[in-house]
Formats: sequence, structure tokens, C-alpha cells
Amino acid sequence: MTHPPHHAGESRLERGRRALAEIDGHAGEKVVAALADIAPDFATYLLEFPFGDIYSRPGLDLRAREIATIAALTAMGNAAPQLKVHIEAGLNVGLSRGEIAEIIMQMAVYAGFPAALNGLFAAKEVFAK
Amino acid sequence: MTHPPHHAGESRLERGRRALAEIDGHAGEKVVAALADIAPDFATYLLEFPFGDIYSRPGLDLRAREIATIAALTAMGNAAPQLKVHIEAGLNVGLSRGEIAEIIMQMAVYAGFPAALNGLFAAKEVFAK
Amino acid sequence: MTHPPHHAGESRLERGRRALAEIDGHAGEKVVAALADIAPDFATYLLEFPFGDIYSRPGLDLRAREIATIAALTAMGNAAPQLKVHIEAGLNVGLSRGEIAEIIMQMAVYAGFPAALNGLFAAKEVFAK
Amino acid sequence: MTHPPHHAGESRLERGRRALAEIDGHAGEKVVAALADIAPDFATYLLEFPFGDIYSRPGLDLRAREIATIAALTAMGNAAPQLKVHIEAGLNVGLSRGEIAEIIMQMAVYAGFPAALNGLFAAKEVFAK
Amino acid sequence: MTHPPHHAGESRLERGRRALAEIDGHAGEKVVAALADIAPDFATYLLEFPFGDIYSRPGLDLRAREIATIAALTAMGNAAPQLKVHIEAGLNVGLSRGEIAEIIMQMAVYAGFPAALNGLFAAKEVFAK
Amino acid sequence: MTHPPHHAGESRLERGRRALAEIDGHAGEKVVAALADIAPDFATYLLEFPFGDIYSRPGLDLRAREIATIAALTAMGNAAPQLKVHIEAGLNVGLSRGEIAEIIMQMAVYAGFPAALNGLFAAKEVFAK
Repeated sequence: MTHPPHHAGESRLERGRRALAEIDGHAGEKVVAALADIAPDFATYLLEFPFGDIYSRPGLDLRAREIATIAALTAMGNAAPQLKVHIEAGLNVGLSRGEIAEIIMQMAVYAGFPAALNGLFAAKEVFAK
Repeated sequence: MTHPPHHAGESRLERGRRALAEIDGHAGEKVVAALADIAPDFATYLLEFPFGDIYSRPGLDLRAREIATIAALTAMGNAAPQLKVHIEAGLNVGLSRGEIAEIIMQMAVYAGFPAALNGLFAAKEVFAK
Repeated sequence: MTHPPHHAGESRLERGRRALAEIDGHAGEKVVAALADIAPDFATYLLEFPFGDIYSRPGLDLRAREIATIAALTAMGNAAPQLKVHIEAGLNVGLSRGEIAEIIMQMAVYAGFPAALNGLFAAKEVFAK
Repeated sequence: MTHPPHHAGESRLERGRRALAEIDGHAGEKVVAALADIAPDFATYLLEFPFGDIYSRPGLDLRAREIATIAALTAMGNAAPQLKVHIEAGLNVGLSRGEIAEIIMQMAVYAGFPAALNGLFAAKEVFAK
Repeated sequence: MTHPPHHAGESRLERGRRALAEIDGHAGEKVVAALADIAPDFATYLLEFPFGDIYSRPGLDLRAREIATIAALTAMGNAAPQLKVHIEAGLNVGLSRGEIAEIIMQMAVYAGFPAALNGLFAAKEVFAK
Repeated sequence: MTHPPHHAGESRLERGRRALAEIDGHAGEKVVAALADIAPDFATYLLEFPFGDIYSRPGLDLRAREIATIAALTAMGNAAPQLKVHIEAGLNVGLSRGEIAEIIMQMAVYAGFPAALNGLFAAKEVFAK
């Protein structure tokens, strides 16, 4: 799957909203909605910078971008909700379950077995839905 | 680039040594040599588990594996020497400089701007060689 | 709000107990009570060093100290219970809800969007009480 | 308690399975079982490298190894399930409850009070069983 | 010191450039220049999101924002160059040397003594210039 | 080696100074001296809490305490100067070079191979002196 194309005249916010929908589906929308009463501007930033700017860049396809994100969130080991969203996003952009398990397993090398185990159990939960 | 094929009758250590040479080139050899007087068994484990086991698995190609590793080491932000080795490894397995910069830039979203900046400066150093 | 004044003849433990009550209110007491059967000495250290020594120092007011603590715990991303206690402590020493949200949002820059999101959702939980 | 002896002709997997049973008891078995449907090979690696290779090495007894693991997992603060397994493992290899509390308390010095508090509450949960 | 005011008709990039100059002075410019050959777009993002969006928000003054940043970077302990830039920025926006030392010392409570020690030695280096 | 005994009438500061000298030798003194102009009170806290309180507790001997500290600092991977001080401290309290290498190697399991490699290279540097 290729990156979301830039549409003429589209704002960063519009482009981000489109990219978020494509990548994270409903999980992304829910995060944006949950921010409405505490920090609505942060929802805007979330759409604009990560999705409108970074994920919409042409230099790397979405499959590669989700490999990077799943790896990083598994290795950091302190962002379980976001890891689950991106395991689902990985499936959305064409990674297979087996490939996602490979990425997470590999993190045992760089961040230790507990990080990889907790990542695999997060994936198990997402795959079970 | 595909994963290193399993050769009949090859031990984990031999397979790891072959994978390390293919992926990390001389940088990998130097690490193994530097361990000789302090923890020679650890050099064996390093060849066997990360390279003989994980990187040699068929379920994910080396390009994807290096995307995952560069992302994780950038995000963790506490393993500069290994990040540099894997930026070089990324080039070895076919990632372009631009793609490596994209992976590292994306980490600003997940691990903050300092992690991404330090990753980009590590890449700059590797690319300058 | 200024720092807790040093009272003549007060021990570190007494000063810490007074500072904890002022800053963390009942949440602090509960932590101390929960340590009674597993590590009672640790409750003493917790009162003495962080509260009797550090928070009681005159060089920085409690408002500034809670800004620092909320920022750090959000950025570290692995201490949710303590972050919630200090979001409440921030309100106790005069930070507004809006200011607390600003501090947490800013952490997206230094520790990534997941850390900031999880911090905002912790604040939402505290504010809802 | 000394390290698990190497038995003649035993494979890494067999040795790892034996070491895991000795150290982690049923908790270890459950982790291995939970991996069966998502990443069965990872269960093999977990038995082989950490337990068949590292914990079976003669240079450090299991008591010392569990001190190291409890300290590291407390300090990292992002692997609660594994910390609990190793608090139990610590008891299995001869550490007293008091010694385990000492190790965890000491981590306040190196990783901060929240890490130590969360470690102590994990120990409280394990000791209550 | 208050936050950088929004000027009518100013773009995020222009506002960010102005905020960066006010906060980080020449240190900020140098970082932007160093990115020119490896990731020029990242310099733009750095100006736009952290400085044009976050630091320019009216809800928290720059003094408070630098307290938060110095605390977070000290606690994370893996971004020495950025910590030094923000210790200097703290001085630029009106924090005293003593206040900066207080913030860093307090991090011993949340991230351990090594993080605080390394932060103090970074401050010592900045103050010596 | 057992823990430093409590002497009648000794203050926390005196006890800490004695414990620091016993454990860290000259390396500890140098850290205390380096704090004199930036944060002299922090030198006092460092002597009092980690050394006067924690390391002087009778429930765990110094050998076990240094195993815990070396493991934690290796795993955290962001405190190289303190790790080196404690590798030397480990030798001072009776750990052999081989045992220290075992502790560090084991961290590959919990914090990844880069953390263990960087720990081993730190040990190599200390052992070479």
C-alpha cells in the first residue's frame, strides 16, 4: 500500500484526518473523540503532525511506516494502548499476522524478552477480535 | 533483499556468522572481536540468537527487519553505537539514505523530537563515511 | 503557593509528613499506609527524602515543583499511579486544569505522542473525580 | 541454590525447560503455553536462550541471578507481569521476602521512588498469594 | 516572561522561528542548520510543531514550559544535547541557576540519582560557558 | 562482605560517608567534590539517602546490593558514568570480574543485546585500569 496522496488545496488537518482514517480506522477516531473535553487542540495536533505531515510523506510507504511504529512501541514497552492501535493499523495497511509477530519477536534482541512477550500478548488480543 | 537461506547441516553459530557478515559487514566482526577478552561466550550468543535465529527466519525480509531495528534503536535513544551499526546495515540490505531518514524522522511522533534529532545526527555521521 | 516553611525543631520525618499532607492530601497517606506491611521503612524514606528534604527546600515553589513532576512522570510513561497522584497534587498547589493539560501536551515534543496521550487520559480520570 | 547442572547429551531446549521449571515453576509454563497460538517458536527461543543458555551458566548462582533480574525489572518499570514472575522465582531459589523488599527498595536510588513503589506493590501482590 | 504573542498573518513556520530564537537563541539556529543536508523538512517540522504550535500557546508561560522541559529531559536521561540547549533556554526565559539546579535535583526522586547527577553535570557545563 | 555496621551516635551523613568510602572508594569522593560548586546540598543527600540509609541497611549484604545496582544500571542503559563507578564498587565488595560479566550478559535477556554490549564494554574499560 502506498502513502496517502496529497490532494490539491487540502489542509494539513484534512490530510491528517484522511490518513488517520486510512491507517487506524475507527480506533483513531475514538482517540480523537476522547480528547474533545480535555484537550481538543491536541486532537488537532495529532491529526496534523503525525498524520497530516509524517505519515503523508511520499518517501516511505505505509507498510514500512507501520513496521517502524510497531517495532518502536514494542521496544519502548510503555504505550500498550497505542501499540494495539498500530498492530491493527499494520493489518489495515497490508501486514500479515505472521509478519507482525516477526517484528515483535525481533524486539527481544533490542529491548529484551519482556518487551517482546508483552508485545506478542498485545497482538494476540488484537488478533482475537 | 531476502533473508539469509538456511543451509543444510549448518549450525546456528555458522548461520549467525553468515547472517551477521551479510547484514552488518565489518562492523559486526569488530563487535565480536571486541568481546574476545571480556565475554567470548557473549559473542557466540550474539551470533547465535539475534543472527542465527531471528534474522535468519523466513517470515520477514531483511529490509523490513532493518526498518524495525532502526526505528526501535532510535526510539530507545540509549544505544548510539548499535544504531550506527544498523544504519549501515540498513544501507547494506537496500534501504536508501532517504528511507532511513524517513524512519528516523517518524520516531519524533513516538519517542519525541530529541530521539529523532539524535538519530538523524547518527545517520549523518554514518552517511559521511 | 510557597514551599512548606521549616519549623524549628521539626524532624525530617515530621516535616515530610506535613509537606506530603499539603501536597498530596489523602492520596499520599494511602501510599504510606499501603507500605505498612511490606516495607514500613520505605514509607519513612518516602516522607523524609522526597518530602522532608526536596519538596521542603526554599529554592523553588511548590507550583514549579509540581510542573516539573507532572512533566517528568508523563515523559517517563511508566508510573501511571504516581502521575495521577501528582496531577491531583498540581491542583492542590494551585495549577489549573488547563495548565496541567498544557504541561502534558508539551511532553509530546520530548517523549512522543503516546506519552502525552496517556498523560492526558490520566488527567481526564483525575479531573472527573 | 546453585545453577542447574548441564546434563550430558541434553539439548539447549531440554536444559532450558528444566531450568525454567526449577526457577519459575508453573508461571513459566503458563507463559510458554500462552505463546502456542501466536508465536510458538518464540516459546522455544525463550526456553533456549534465557534459560538453556544464560541461567544455566555456571559462573553465577541462581540466587544472584534472581537478584539481578528483580533489580532490573523494577528499575525498568515497564514489565510488571515479568517482575511478578521473577519475584516468585526469587522465592523459589531461596531469597527471603525481606531480601526481595530490600532489592526493590534500593531501586529508588537508581530509578526513582515510583519504580520502587510499583515494585513493592507487585511484591505485595505476589507475597499475598 | 510571557509566551510569544501570535502576530496577525504569521505562518506557523514564522511563528516557530521567532519562538525558537526567543527561547533557544543561537543553539536553536545551529540545530536547524545541522539538519539542512540530512533532513531539511525535519527542521521545518521542528520549527512548526514544538515552537510554532506548542511553545506559542497562551495557556502556560515560557518559564513554566522550560521547567517542564528541563525536568523531562533530565528524567529521561538519554538526550544530553537537548537538555543542555534547554538549560540555556531556561536561563534565557528567566530561570535562575539555582532554580535550574532545584528542578534537576528533584528528578532524583522520580528518575533516580544517576539521572539527577548527569543533569547537574550538564548544567555545570552550561553555566561554565 | 557484610553491610557497613551502624555505629552508635553516628549521623546519617557520617554513616553515608563511611559507606561511600567502603563501596565506591575514590570514585565516590570525586562525585561529591564535583557537586561542590553546583549543588553542594545534593552531595549531602547522595551521602545520606543512598549510602547512609539504603546501603547501610542490614537486610542485604553489599555483594548482593552491587549485583542489583550493576544489573539495573546496565538495563537502564542511560547512566554510563554511574555504571562504571558501580562495576568498580562490585570489585571492591568482592565480586569477581567473571561474576560481573555474568550479571551484565544476563541483562541481554531483560533489556536487549545493545544494553548488555554497552555494559560489557564499560566493564572492559574499568577492568583495564
